[in-house]
Amino acid sequence: MTREVILYGLGSMGQRIARLALERGYRIAGAIDLDRAKAGQPLSRVLGLPKGTCDATVSDDAASVLAATTGAVVLQATSSFLAQVAGPIAHCLEQGHDVISIAEEMTFPAAASPETADRLNRIAAQHGVRLLGTGVNPGFAMDMLVLALTVPCGRVDYILATRTNDLSDFGPTVLTGQGVGLSPDEFHSAVADGRVVGHVGFDQSVALIARHLGWKIDRVEETRTPIMSTVTRATDHLTITTGQVAGCLHCMKAFVDGREVLHLEHPQQIRPDLEAQATSDRIIITGDQAIDMVIAPEIGGGAGTAAAAVNAIEYLACTAPGLIHLTDLPLNSPRALTA
Amino acid sequence: MTREVILYGLGSMGQRIARLALERGYRIAGAIDLDRAKAGQPLSRVLGLPKGTCDATVSDDAASVLAATTGAVVLQATSSFLAQVAGPIAHCLEQGHDVISIAEEMTFPAAASPETADRLNRIAAQHGVRLLGTGVNPGFAMDMLVLALTVPCGRVDYILATRTNDLSDFGPTVLTGQGVGLSPDEFHSAVADGRVVGHVGFDQSVALIARHLGWKIDRVEETRTPIMSTVTRATDHLTITTGQVAGCLHCMKAFVDGREVLHLEHPQQIRPDLEAQATSDRIIITGDQAIDMVIAPEIGGGAGTAAAAVNAIEYLACTAPGLIHLTDLPLNSPRALTA
Repeated sequence: MTREVILYGLGSMGQRIARLALERGYRIAGAIDLDRAKAGQPLSRVLGLPKGTCDATVSDDAASVLAATTGAVVLQATSSFLAQVAGPIAHCLEQGHDVISIAEEMTFPAAASPETADRLNRIAAQHGVRLLGTGVNPGFAMDMLVLALTVPCGRVDYILATRTNDLSDFGPTVLTGQGVGLSPDEFHSAVADGRVVGHVGFDQSVALIARHLGWKIDRVEETRTPIMSTVTRATDHLTITTGQVAGCLHCMKAFVDGREVLHLEHPQQIRPDLEAQATSDRIIITGDQAIDMVIAPEIGGGAGTAAAAVNAIEYLACTAPGLIHLTDLPLNSPRALTA
Repeated sequence: MTREVILYGLGSMGQRIARLALERGYRIAGAIDLDRAKAGQPLSRVLGLPKGTCDATVSDDAASVLAATTGAVVLQATSSFLAQVAGPIAHCLEQGHDVISIAEEMTFPAAASPETADRLNRIAAQHGVRLLGTGVNPGFAMDMLVLALTVPCGRVDYILATRTNDLSDFGPTVLTGQGVGLSPDEFHSAVADGRVVGHVGFDQSVALIARHLGWKIDRVEETRTPIMSTVTRATDHLTITTGQVAGCLHCMKAFVDGREVLHLEHPQQIRPDLEAQATSDRIIITGDQAIDMVIAPEIGGGAGTAAAAVNAIEYLACTAPGLIHLTDLPLNSPRALTA
């Protein structure tokens, strides 16, 4: 039987998820967004779809939408951080709904807060429902795809995963978080006081990989380095010149018994093409195999995260109720529905 | 608790599997090979390992070895074909052992014989044990890795997977099966009478992908084309000249509702480097993503198949007893043992 879906969060990513869920034939049982501009509007209008594509109306009253049905799958897309999504997610679980969240920290919530992860696991188990975090990064490009490539490996000595992308389509919020347009000095201050965060999700990727391979990580090293531009780079949102920061090279290294075993690097910048840098996902694994994988250009993050969320719906039932990790499931491929 | 392992078949692949299983800390509860030259010898000598590495002795009496213990995992490496492995596998299952087989047709036995697959499933379920087929190809390079790359896809329109490898290390048996050294006319006759088989496993790869994506395949088209050499190519085993066959380009296309959705192509030849052909695994997926993945050189088949077999041990328990497919399991990564 085709599952009913509740959309929770209709920002840019939530809208992509909504459109894909409709395209794939899921019935929308409810749509929640706290934005007053969206509340009360037909979902089809918010999604830019023809009138009548679906009959849901967006509501800012989460409690009523969640109570109106039970046994649905909530697709949650509101924030990157566990602290911000844990409350709303607990509410969904208590109402008897499964939850798939694209909050970056939800792909391995214990890496952000073991207590919160435990609490959500208990609530989900108690109510006989499942909770899963997914997305492209974390959730695929720098962790699940890495693990897929370890399948033909008898021994893994070292993993390097590099995701090089282009931020040119993003607006001020994203660009500020990567330090685009700052001077080198300003960049370092902004890292120090938390205005430049780089990528959210390395802790989750490291935890997913380490747990699946049975690695006990001693420590991680994290660096955020400015990517300096040596040319003028322009996007629709801003222009930077030589000597200004084009983005942030965020890296994390993880160590087992004092030895570096995992290196994740994620340079995020505007217009890398102007300095002859192609965008790509690259994964190198050494051990008894020597694997060098390149996907160029890189896997699309927006479309990929929406797909990961919608694809996961059909795989929730593969495990017992509680907090699920992607590593516990079969590959979450897009599965044709048997309605 | 660390599982006990029984080795069934100690040819080239069986020996690789045996060495890796020992390296990974599994206890060898028995070793079976019907070759009189190996029977009665210490396993360590057959494997070329120092005396005392393990205390098993190779036996050609399968019934006794299988009856001497119960609840082990049999790692089976004797033949590519279901018809040849089904009997021995049934025997292992009836003795209460799980079985992991690298027989190509065992990755999706129903594609070779639905009746035999059903029968093995019933026997396994009846005895509360599990049966899994795995390997690099089929089992990974042209199916599970393809499916891994569909995870960030909301819609998959078309898949092309190409595995280009080098047969130069192989001896006469393998080279004959690919038609190496024949004239074009001889090649076509050898395909017609079954002496040139090309790759074994396309039916299994198509079935794994189709079942996981929910595709109903109308029909497949299969071609075996000679790869003609335009230079002299030499290996330790033979030398061919211009106008002779260097190998076999084996292709399979699969159609859904009359539309081609999947194209697998596997050119296998000696010394592709002499005509500037790099070896690689390449996967292209079109749909709402445009994914172009290259692994160069290609994933090692021998090491990869041994790893796939040994890695699978820890994942058998993830599903109910019976015939298992790789698509039902979490990623079979090498997992550190918790002995």
